[in-house]
Amino acid sequence: MEFTARIIADYLKGEIEGDPEAKVSAFAKIEEGRPGALSFLANPKYEKYLYETRSSIVIVGKAQTVARPVSGTLIRVDDPYRSFAALLELYASAREEKTGREEPVSVAPSAKLGEDIFIGAFSCIGENASIGNRVKIHQQVYIGENVRIGDRTVLYPGVKIYRDCVVGADCVLHAGAVVGADGFGFAPQTGSDYKKVPQIGNAVIEDRVEIGANTCIDRATMGSTIIRKGVKLDNLIQVGHNVEIGENTVIASQTGISGSCRIGKNCMFAGQVGLAGHITVADGTKIGAQSGLNSSIKEANRTVMGSPAVDYADCMRSYVIVRQLPAIKKRLDELERKLNEKQS
Amino acid sequence: MEFTARIIADYLKGEIEGDPEAKVSAFAKIEEGRPGALSFLANPKYEKYLYETRSSIVIVGKAQTVARPVSGTLIRVDDPYRSFAALLELYASAREEKTGREEPVSVAPSAKLGEDIFIGAFSCIGENASIGNRVKIHQQVYIGENVRIGDRTVLYPGVKIYRDCVVGADCVLHAGAVVGADGFGFAPQTGSDYKKVPQIGNAVIEDRVEIGANTCIDRATMGSTIIRKGVKLDNLIQVGHNVEIGENTVIASQTGISGSCRIGKNCMFAGQVGLAGHITVADGTKIGAQSGLNSSIKEANRTVMGSPAVDYADCMRSYVIVRQLPAIKKRLDELERKLNEKQS
Amino acid sequence: MEFTARIIADYLKGEIEGDPEAKVSAFAKIEEGRPGALSFLANPKYEKYLYETRSSIVIVGKAQTVARPVSGTLIRVDDPYRSFAALLELYASAREEKTGREEPVSVAPSAKLGEDIFIGAFSCIGENASIGNRVKIHQQVYIGENVRIGDRTVLYPGVKIYRDCVVGADCVLHAGAVVGADGFGFAPQTGSDYKKVPQIGNAVIEDRVEIGANTCIDRATMGSTIIRKGVKLDNLIQVGHNVEIGENTVIASQTGISGSCRIGKNCMFAGQVGLAGHITVADGTKIGAQSGLNSSIKEANRTVMGSPAVDYADCMRSYVIVRQLPAIKKRLDELERKLNEKQS
Repeated sequence: MEFTARIIADYLKGEIEGDPEAKVSAFAKIEEGRPGALSFLANPKYEKYLYETRSSIVIVGKAQTVARPVSGTLIRVDDPYRSFAALLELYASAREEKTGREEPVSVAPSAKLGEDIFIGAFSCIGENASIGNRVKIHQQVYIGENVRIGDRTVLYPGVKIYRDCVVGADCVLHAGAVVGADGFGFAPQTGSDYKKVPQIGNAVIEDRVEIGANTCIDRATMGSTIIRKGVKLDNLIQVGHNVEIGENTVIASQTGISGSCRIGKNCMFAGQVGLAGHITVADGTKIGAQSGLNSSIKEANRTVMGSPAVDYADCMRSYVIVRQLPAIKKRLDELERKLNEKQS
Repeated sequence: MEFTARIIADYLKGEIEGDPEAKVSAFAKIEEGRPGALSFLANPKYEKYLYETRSSIVIVGKAQTVARPVSGTLIRVDDPYRSFAALLELYASAREEKTGREEPVSVAPSAKLGEDIFIGAFSCIGENASIGNRVKIHQQVYIGENVRIGDRTVLYPGVKIYRDCVVGADCVLHAGAVVGADGFGFAPQTGSDYKKVPQIGNAVIEDRVEIGANTCIDRATMGSTIIRKGVKLDNLIQVGHNVEIGENTVIASQTGISGSCRIGKNCMFAGQVGLAGHITVADGTKIGAQSGLNSSIKEANRTVMGSPAVDYADCMRSYVIVRQLPAIKKRLDELERKLNEKQS
Repeated sequence: MEFTARIIADYLKGEIEGDPEAKVSAFAKIEEGRPGALSFLANPKYEKYLYETRSSIVIVGKAQTVARPVSGTLIRVDDPYRSFAALLELYASAREEKTGREEPVSVAPSAKLGEDIFIGAFSCIGENASIGNRVKIHQQVYIGENVRIGDRTVLYPGVKIYRDCVVGADCVLHAGAVVGADGFGFAPQTGSDYKKVPQIGNAVIEDRVEIGANTCIDRATMGSTIIRKGVKLDNLIQVGHNVEIGENTVIASQTGISGSCRIGKNCMFAGQVGLAGHITVADGTKIGAQSGLNSSIKEANRTVMGSPAVDYADCMRSYVIVRQLPAIKKRLDELERKLNEKQS
């Protein structure tokens, strides 16, 4: 797709300075500009890049001063970042507009398919599954029996959704994500053998949830594992059986949530965090990277860190002193020596 | 599937109190009961839920007192939990009873297929592979050349088993699990480049092993990576080349076992544990979450924790004191001050 | 494949001692030898195995003394390890020689396919994708629109490469690896909701890169996530958006690299390491297992460890003292007691 400065300025209601026929077909940061790319300048600190960039079009603020000659065409708008973001979204959404059905696919006769959906090659839709309108099912996706998928949800290649699970509207599931595999439940038997506890619940993903590549959300033993509206999960995350994650909570890559945890709304967990089983986490909790939480957090909006996790400030204080430990030990040795001298 | 109280009571050899025609089609915890669901009450602590639950049928003990009116039908049995678990298993096994072959699949002419197997759409079975009786190969599964799969094993959608690997009987492999990818072996060359060490061994999974979603078990450089009978691995676990994991060992999510480790029987590793390469771990070892093991454990049945891991009690003692460090440092400052005062 | 001692000796330019018609069809370590296997003896420490091994052929050095009778046939060469490795590679490469196209596959008419490629069943190649010569695309692989794949690269079953990404020549991507899923970028909105930041960049994998099973490399928000020549990534690794990893850097399993990190050449990261976002790591940096890096490393060739990571020696010193903390606390108690006695 190629666009002229004239078309972009019309769309943004901006003013052109330079060649209205300048053409772009890509986006670039202003400091990484190249011919054929569109950039923007919002932060005055980066003004120098305006004179260095090789981008063909740069979106700038109405009040932007231009002290030296500029090689590209400028488009002046009220808010350059917002305008740029609007173009990015337009571009990204234009790329997702495929509909129809590639061949072959395996769609059960009893499955209900919404309007204007896309089904990529080698995808499967099981018996009694129900697919909303404008859903994009990319290639090699598996949708089990009785699964329901809400409107406009996008399932990237290789997503696997086990039977009976529910995914809401406007969700995005990335390649390799697995929803509804069995929870990890085994009852000890006599003779140190284990017996599998049947996992007959499901997993329910509400609306506007994003799930990263190769992330796993286990089904409940009974009842539902629940991911509430607006939750964003990064790649390679583990969510155990019967967990509930509250609205708009954001969790970074490689974090693991053990079974039966209840996590509040608007939390933020950094990467590689671990939560022990059956923990409750209050709304608005922030957890630092690599932290390990082994007990519940009852007060809202705390920030914790460390393994085991404690208040952020306490953790930082301990870190500082741990580094001073060799010096502290020397001081203690010295004190003992002095005291012994006096006594002798 | 819908069942009446009469049919369930017959199966469990229980006695009905209430409507023998009451129907259920789902299971629920008693505190999450709803019409059409079957629940159970085993723990006397939960008796109040007996009067509140909306479940249509509740399984209770023979001696259970009923102090107030109950809306659902009761079935009295000797051991309510066991009876409920038996029904769960019956239900779960009934769901797995698909056989036959969906189309299209890619099955090499030289592959040997057992009786009563299921092969889902878009699955591949390579040359000279051998599939046992009653195996369930779900959709989009890959089974490489010469792979052997034992009787009654279930491979969920998207499982990938590289050539020459062996999976025993009664195993369950969840979606996205990868068995037999190359071990991570590279020999340094002149000029800081690396040369791949060919990985020509295989991976052997014995009977009754469960492998979680997106878990990876690498093939051996030479010989075999071996997962012994009854091992249970959770999701997103890494098992390096030439590792051996002993019988009935259970490992939680996101744990990583480096190459050539030998892990004993009946061990329990919590989540996000890491083991350095070439470590031996004695039978019955328990390792706490997020621990890092950098040397062998020779004595059986120890519990270790921390990174680096030490005895559980020592680790806990250190944790407590680490939190007191700021206070300890203050006391030291004070002692020094006092001693200096005296000296001056 | 079966080979005689005569054929192997010819290939290696070695000398036979024993039966030139001895046959082998597998490789084994000398201490795990069995009839039909080929082994080697390079380290004099292992000489005793020469007399115990059941391998049919053993490759030994020209100067190797043979003090007792040997059951197998010997082949004498200059460098036994090198000769053995050469045979391993020959064997491994012979196994990869499939070409042609299984059916069904989904290949867009506009895709450009190189010579002598292999495409396994149920794989997809998108519009305008370009595939080099002798590329092996195993089964159930997804290659999106405009993707370019260099010569001789191997994509194992279930690899997913999103649109616009680039993979160089001589790369190996293992099963379940995901290249080019969206970076994790969400802008906070009013009302604690998040808005997705479109991720319109790509991921670029240069030549001779190996990527482990279920590893995820996110596409850039704008521009490219870049994995330079010769990088080796193990399984289950997370590489965030806009990261750059320098030439010949090696990273072990389950490590996570947050967005916009810049990692130098020839680094070595152990397993389960975590890097915070926007960090720069100098060439030749070594990072110990489970370490967490929260600030940049500017000096080359340092070794760091711990969470947060510090110099290796400092980290070790702290570890030692942390274990002594209970004893240190006791000494402090004792000192205080003594001092108070004196004062009273």
